[in-house]
Amino acid sequence: MNSRMERKLRQDPEDIIGFLSEALPLSRCGRDETKVWFCFWSRAMHDSELGLMQRSMHCRWRGKVDRLLEGMVKRGEICVNCGAEDEAEALCALINGIGLRATLDPENWPAKRQVKTLEDHLAHLAPKASVH
Amino acid sequence: MNSRMERKLRQDPEDIIGFLSEALPLSRCGRDETKVWFCFWSRAMHDSELGLMQRSMHCRWRGKVDRLLEGMVKRGEICVNCGAEDEAEALCALINGIGLRATLDPENWPAKRQVKTLEDHLAHLAPKASVH
Repeated sequence: MNSRMERKLRQDPEDIIGFLSEALPLSRCGRDETKVWFCFWSRAMHDSELGLMQRSMHCRWRGKVDRLLEGMVKRGEICVNCGAEDEAEALCALINGIGLRATLDPENWPAKRQVKTLEDHLAHLAPKASVH
Repeated sequence: MNSRMERKLRQDPEDIIGFLSEALPLSRCGRDETKVWFCFWSRAMHDSELGLMQRSMHCRWRGKVDRLLEGMVKRGEICVNCGAEDEAEALCALINGIGLRATLDPENWPAKRQVKTLEDHLAHLAPKASVH
């Protein structure tokens, strides 16, 4: 998580889409950042020291996503039946996967589509209508 | 998509989890394959010819996932309110994201957890109970 994301969160602690979108390659600058992340991850897959560092960074990032999802649960915006940690991991995985596609195929993945994919994912977690 | 996946699909065309799981690093061999994919993607981000090839490969893979999801919709197993293509893309993105984590952190991502993350994702697409 970088200072831009911290700033976004301070501006509106409940704006999870705004916060998570900062991790997506929404612009050329974001795609350049994603390229660097992919280089880092590729290296970390073969280097135990980098691997350790990566897992520690991921742990902090996932913890932040955990807390944001917990906030959404408390506000009744989502349900996390399969566990908050697992939902946070799924969301982090989705973000990395979107980042991959949007960097490899930017013409087909404008910012709007990336953000919509995040929104759709969270919409699936919305509480289901109760049956009377 | 490789011959192992084709074989899996011929065995049971409705076993979407079994088919998609073949794209996950469920074992050491799978992690080695994922490492190669990450090298390829990193290169394709910087090489227009490889980028073109990657997009074409992805298109075929996504098309297959599309058709599997369409089958699930027809059987009433899922709803794809945001569009079948977008759901297929989200699923492909999730698979790549799980592959990243499971390769970087295999101890915390055994096969069972990877498959459960896929299952949970598809469970979120299950038709919502109708309100009477």
